Amino acid sequence: MIRFNCDYSEGAHPRILEAMLATNMEQTPGYGEDIHCMNAANMIKKLCGREDIAVHFLVGGTQANLTVISAMLRPYQGVISCQTGHINVHETGAIEATGHKVLAVNSGDGKLTGEMIRSVCRAHFEDDTHEHMVMPGAVYRSNSTESGTVYTADELMYVRRACDEYNLYLFLDGARLGYAMAAEPSVTFGLLAGICDVFYIGGTKQGALFGEAVVIVNPAVNRDFRYFIKQKGGMLAKGRLLGIQFEELLRDGLYMELAKGAVDKALRIKKAAVEKGYGLAADSPSNQQFIIVPDEKLKMLNEKYAFSYMGRVNAENSQIRICTSWATSDADVDALIADL
Amino acid sequence: MIRFNCDYSEGAHPRILEAMLATNMEQTPGYGEDIHCMNAANMIKKLCGREDIAVHFLVGGTQANLTVISAMLRPYQGVISCQTGHINVHETGAIEATGHKVLAVNSGDGKLTGEMIRSVCRAHFEDDTHEHMVMPGAVYRSNSTESGTVYTADELMYVRRACDEYNLYLFLDGARLGYAMAAEPSVTFGLLAGICDVFYIGGTKQGALFGEAVVIVNPAVNRDFRYFIKQKGGMLAKGRLLGIQFEELLRDGLYMELAKGAVDKALRIKKAAVEKGYGLAADSPSNQQFIIVPDEKLKMLNEKYAFSYMGRVNAENSQIRICTSWATSDADVDALIADL
Amino acid sequence: MIRFNCDYSEGAHPRILEAMLATNMEQTPGYGEDIHCMNAANMIKKLCGREDIAVHFLVGGTQANLTVISAMLRPYQGVISCQTGHINVHETGAIEATGHKVLAVNSGDGKLTGEMIRSVCRAHFEDDTHEHMVMPGAVYRSNSTESGTVYTADELMYVRRACDEYNLYLFLDGARLGYAMAAEPSVTFGLLAGICDVFYIGGTKQGALFGEAVVIVNPAVNRDFRYFIKQKGGMLAKGRLLGIQFEELLRDGLYMELAKGAVDKALRIKKAAVEKGYGLAADSPSNQQFIIVPDEKLKMLNEKYAFSYMGRVNAENSQIRICTSWATSDADVDALIADL
Amino acid sequence: MIRFNCDYSEGAHPRILEAMLATNMEQTPGYGEDIHCMNAANMIKKLCGREDIAVHFLVGGTQANLTVISAMLRPYQGVISCQTGHINVHETGAIEATGHKVLAVNSGDGKLTGEMIRSVCRAHFEDDTHEHMVMPGAVYRSNSTESGTVYTADELMYVRRACDEYNLYLFLDGARLGYAMAAEPSVTFGLLAGICDVFYIGGTKQGALFGEAVVIVNPAVNRDFRYFIKQKGGMLAKGRLLGIQFEELLRDGLYMELAKGAVDKALRIKKAAVEKGYGLAADSPSNQQFIIVPDEKLKMLNEKYAFSYMGRVNAENSQIRICTSWATSDADVDALIADL
Repeated sequence: MIRFNCDYSEGAHPRILEAMLATNMEQTPGYGEDIHCMNAANMIKKLCGREDIAVHFLVGGTQANLTVISAMLRPYQGVISCQTGHINVHETGAIEATGHKVLAVNSGDGKLTGEMIRSVCRAHFEDDTHEHMVMPGAVYRSNSTESGTVYTADELMYVRRACDEYNLYLFLDGARLGYAMAAEPSVTFGLLAGICDVFYIGGTKQGALFGEAVVIVNPAVNRDFRYFIKQKGGMLAKGRLLGIQFEELLRDGLYMELAKGAVDKALRIKKAAVEKGYGLAADSPSNQQFIIVPDEKLKMLNEKYAFSYMGRVNAENSQIRICTSWATSDADVDALIADL
Repeated sequence: MIRFNCDYSEGAHPRILEAMLATNMEQTPGYGEDIHCMNAANMIKKLCGREDIAVHFLVGGTQANLTVISAMLRPYQGVISCQTGHINVHETGAIEATGHKVLAVNSGDGKLTGEMIRSVCRAHFEDDTHEHMVMPGAVYRSNSTESGTVYTADELMYVRRACDEYNLYLFLDGARLGYAMAAEPSVTFGLLAGICDVFYIGGTKQGALFGEAVVIVNPAVNRDFRYFIKQKGGMLAKGRLLGIQFEELLRDGLYMELAKGAVDKALRIKKAAVEKGYGLAADSPSNQQFIIVPDEKLKMLNEKYAFSYMGRVNAENSQIRICTSWATSDADVDALIADL
Repeated sequence: MIRFNCDYSEGAHPRILEAMLATNMEQTPGYGEDIHCMNAANMIKKLCGREDIAVHFLVGGTQANLTVISAMLRPYQGVISCQTGHINVHETGAIEATGHKVLAVNSGDGKLTGEMIRSVCRAHFEDDTHEHMVMPGAVYRSNSTESGTVYTADELMYVRRACDEYNLYLFLDGARLGYAMAAEPSVTFGLLAGICDVFYIGGTKQGALFGEAVVIVNPAVNRDFRYFIKQKGGMLAKGRLLGIQFEELLRDGLYMELAKGAVDKALRIKKAAVEKGYGLAADSPSNQQFIIVPDEKLKMLNEKYAFSYMGRVNAENSQIRICTSWATSDADVDALIADL
Repeated sequence: MIRFNCDYSEGAHPRILEAMLATNMEQTPGYGEDIHCMNAANMIKKLCGREDIAVHFLVGGTQANLTVISAMLRPYQGVISCQTGHINVHETGAIEATGHKVLAVNSGDGKLTGEMIRSVCRAHFEDDTHEHMVMPGAVYRSNSTESGTVYTADELMYVRRACDEYNLYLFLDGARLGYAMAAEPSVTFGLLAGICDVFYIGGTKQGALFGEAVVIVNPAVNRDFRYFIKQKGGMLAKGRLLGIQFEELLRDGLYMELAKGAVDKALRIKKAAVEKGYGLAADSPSNQQFIIVPDEKLKMLNEKYAFSYMGRVNAENSQIRICTSWATSDADVDALIADL
C-alpha cells in the first residue's frame, strides 16, 4: 500500500532525528524555556523581519487552534470561519468546548473573503437584538485551506481590512503554511506578521515529528498566553523537542525546500490527471489534489494506494484527495500517474 | 404606541396576580419543593395522561434550553437545530457556553424534518473520521417555530422516528406551545409526552409573569436534573411563584383559552393583510404573522405601532412581524387592520 | 409549623404586589429596557451618590454571582473566597461550570481579611511556577456573611487595599446587604460604590418576590455585560418586574426599614438565648443567629418550628440557624423565645 | 550546573531514539491507530494480566488528567483530590476549565485515605441541601504522590472500598508510577488494573521523550473516549511515536529497571542527608527527596546544582526537592553527597 492519504504518514526528516540524537543528553529547563526554543524563536523573528513578536511552540494543530482562539475571545464572542474550516468540522467541537460558537459561512473554494466577514458582522452589529446574538470577535482561516486552495497577498490584505472595520482579530491556521507559500510566493513570513494577529507555522505536516510554531503579533493576545497553554494541556514538559525540530526545519531553508518538493510532486499528479481527462473538485496549486474519478478506477486505485475518499459526486464518480509530503518519493508519484 | 412587537409586553393574566395575592403570606419551603409546584406538576401529569414523568419549573426559555440540553448531551455531542432555531441565533451562544455545538440545518419554514436529521447523522456516523467530528446527540425544535409555523402530529412523529434510528434525544421548545396547539389541534399534551424526551409548556409568552414548565419524559434526562438547574442559576428561591402561576394557567382550560384568543386575533390580521394584497413571508397559522409591507406603509405604521422589523425583502418592501397575545384587545386589532 | 429556616418563606411585601397590580396592563419593552428598571436604577444611583455606575437587575443570587464573576475573570484566573462562601459551597459548582476555580481560604468567622488575600496572592505571584497555577483575578465576599457576621467600613477598606496591591476586582455578594447595613451603619451604599468594583443589593431575601440589583462601578466589568446576562440565561423577558419591585423597595426607605425590623427581631432571640444560657456558634449582629442547643431541646423545637440544622457540635449539642425576615411576626418571635 | 530539579531534564533513553530512527520511514495510519500503538497496548494488557481493558496514549500528564476526568464526571460532579494534588495546584485550573470542581482535602503526606473520601461524601450526601453542592463523582490520587510518598497495596484497596461505598470512579495519576512501584513492590500493574477504573503509566518522567499510557479498566469511562482525546487537543497526528516509545520502555523490563536505578540513587542521597544530620520534610521512599537545609548550605548548593526550592521552613532553614531520574549519573550523586 502506497500512502497518499495524508502528509503525516512517516516520521520526520532525517536531520530532525539527528538533531534529537545530538542533543539527547543535554540538561535543559522544561516547558519551552530552553535554549533551543529560544533559538528557534529568534530564527522565526528574523524570517518575519521583526523582534516585537512572540513565538510559542505547541504539539499539534487542534491544540493550537483552541488555545489561540480561547485567548482571543471574550466569553460571548465567536469566531468566523468557512463552513469547511478545520475548527468547524474536524476538531470534535474543540472550540465550542471552550465556550465559543463558530460562526460558519459558506465558501465555494474554502477561502474567506472580506465581504463574507462583513456580511456576518452586519447581521450582528446592525440588529437591534444584537445582545441576543453571539458577537463576532475573531476570524479564522487556513492557508492552504482544507480544499487545497491558497490565498494571495492581496486576498489576505482584503480580509485584514474587513477585520479592522469590525475590530476583529485575524488568526491564520498554518498547519500547511509551507505548502501554501510554495504555491503562492507573494505570501511571505514578513507579510503574514504584518497582516495577522496570530498565525502558525506548521511542522507536523511539513517534515517534523510534531509541532506548530505559533507566532503572536498582537501583544493583547499574547498576554499571559503561557497560562492558556498550560491550562489546555498543551505545555510539553520537554519543550526543547519542539525547539530542536524548528531549529532544523528553519535552518538553511529546509522548511521551504521540503514544501516545494511536495508541491511539485502534487502538481505533477494534477497535470497527469487533467491530461488523462479527470475532473478536479477544486483547482488546488498546493500539496493536496482533489480529483474526480469514476467508480471503476476508484476500485482499482484502492487496491494499491491509500488516499482520502471525499464523497460521491454523482452516480458514477467520486471525489478523492491525493496528498503529497516531504516524504513522497518520485517513484510513488510515477506509479500513481501510471495507474491513473 | 400600540405594541404588537412581542407576546410579553404586559404583566400577567389577572387570575395569576390574584392567586399571588391570595397566597402571599403562606410559608412554604423554597426551591420548587412546595405544594403549589406539586399541584401544578400533578395537573400537567393529568393533562399528559401519565404519572411517570417529571415536571420542573424554570423562569425563562433560554434558561430552560441550556439546562435541558446540557443534561442531554455528553461533552463531545451536539444538538441538531434549524438554522433559525432560537438556540442557534438568539441566545448569545448559551448552548456553546455549556460546551456544545449547535449542528444547524437549513429549513425554509423553520421546521425540522426527519430527513434533515438523517442527513446530519449520516454525515457523521458514516464518515471514517467521525471521531474528529461532533457527534449528534439530541434534536431541538420549537413549536410554534420562530417562523410562526407549527407541526402536525404526523410531522412530530416522523422526527421521532429519525431520532430513534440514530439514538438521539428529542427536545421540544414550547415557549409558544399553546399557540401551536391552538393552531393545530392534532397536537395534544398526551401526544407530546408520547413523542418527546423533554418538552416545555411556555408561560412567559402565554399569560404568566414568567415561567416555563419543563416536562421530562425520559428518566435518563431527569437524573439529578435539579443539580443542573441549581448550577445554571435557574433555581428560584421562591419557587412557589412558578407553581402558583401554572396552577392558574392550567385550571379550567385558561391556558388554551388565552392561546386560542391570541391566534384568532392574529388570523384576523393575516386575513385582512392578504385581502389588502400584502404578501406573507411565511404562511403562519399561529400568533406570529410575517407580513411584507412597502416602505411607505412601513413608515406610517411605525408612528403608531410597535412590531419587529425582520429585514428588507427587496428594494421597496420589508418584512415585519406582528405578534398577538392573551392581552391583545380587539380594539387594537381593529385599529391595525384599518391602518394596514 | 412556624418557619425560621430562611428569609424567603413568604411572598413579597404587600406594597410590591400592589405595584405589580397597578402596572399590570402597561405595555413596556422587554429585557430590562423599560421605564421601571430605569427609575429603579436612578434611585440606586442617587443612593450611591454617583451617576457613573451601571445597574442591572437579575432574578437570583447564584445567577448574579456566576454572571458577574465570569465577566470579571480571564479564563486562567480564579476568584478568592472564604471556604464558607456561598459560591464555594452552595451553588453546585456554578463558578467552576463557567471555567473558573474558586480559591478558597479558611476564615473562622466567614469574613475575608486583606491578609488572607495577600497570602493567596503571594503564593501565586511569588512562585516560579506561577504559570502552572490559577492566577487570582477577583475577590468575592458576602455581607452579611454566611455566618451572619458583617463587615465594618474599615474592614471593607482593608480588603480593597489588598485588592489594589494585586490588581484584583472586588465583588460583594449582597443577597443580605440590607441586614448587614442595619447591623453596621458605617456601611452605606455610597461607601460600597466607592470600594467595590461590583456589589449587589439583595431583593429576594429582603422582601421582594425575587430580584438582585447588580451595581457595576468599574466600567471594565460593565463592558458588554448584557451579553453575559443573556448567555447565562438571566435576561428576564418581562424585566420590568424587577424594576417595579426595586422601585417599591427603595421608595421611602422601605428596604432599610424591613431590614432593621428583621434584625431587631433576630437580636431579641439572640439576647434571650444568651440569657437562657445557650452558646452561640457565631457572634452575629444580623438576621441570622447560630445557636447551640442540646439534643433534647432540639427535638422539642423541631416539632413546632422550622430552622436549619447546621451540624453536631459535640455528643450532646448541635448548632441551629434561626433566620428572621421582613415577614417575621412579633408573635412568632415571642413564641420561640418562650420555647427556648 | 548539575540538574536535580526534575526528572525530565534530558531527552530519552537511547533505545527509544534508536527505535524512532529504525521506524522513521514506515508509513502508518495516524492518530494512534497504528501497529506500534497496538503492540504497546498488548504489552500493557499482558502486564496487567487481562485483555478486557483499553489503552490510550497521550502526550502529557495534564492532558491525561483533564481528558480522563472530564470523561468520568457528569457536569455537576467534582473530583476528590488531596490539597497538594497536581490537578488542584499545578495545572492552571485545567479541571475547572472543563467545568468541574476539585474537592480538595488536606493530607499531611500527600496520600488520600478512605476516611478522607468518606468524610467528603458524607458532607455531601447526608446534607439536606445536597442539590446545592457539587456531587463527588470521582477520586484522583497520584502514585508516587507530589510529596514523594507511595501507596501500599492495602492502602490502595482501602481507598477503593470507600469509592465503592459512594459509587465513585477511582483514577490514579501515574506520572511517576514506575518510581512508586520500585519503592513499593506490593503494587503491581495487575493490582492497579484490579483496583482502579483508570490509571496511567508515566513515560515523560520515566525515560521517554514524552507520553503517558492511559489504561481504562471501566468500560463506562472508555465509551467514546477518543472523542474526548480529539476535542481536548490530545490526539497526536503521528500517534505511533507514542506506541514506539512504550514498546521500548516495556520491552525486557526497561521501564522498571530505569525506575529502580533512579530510586536507588535517590535513597543514597536521602541516607547521606540523614547521616549528615539534615531533616526530611517528607519520608519519601521514591525518586523525589525533600530535604531541609540551612540557608548557608542552600546558598552554596545553588551555585553548583539545580533543584526545586519548596519554601521556607523556619528562620534559618528551607525545604528543597532533589529529584533523580533514569539519566542521573552516579558521579553526580557522589558530587551532591560530598557537597551536602
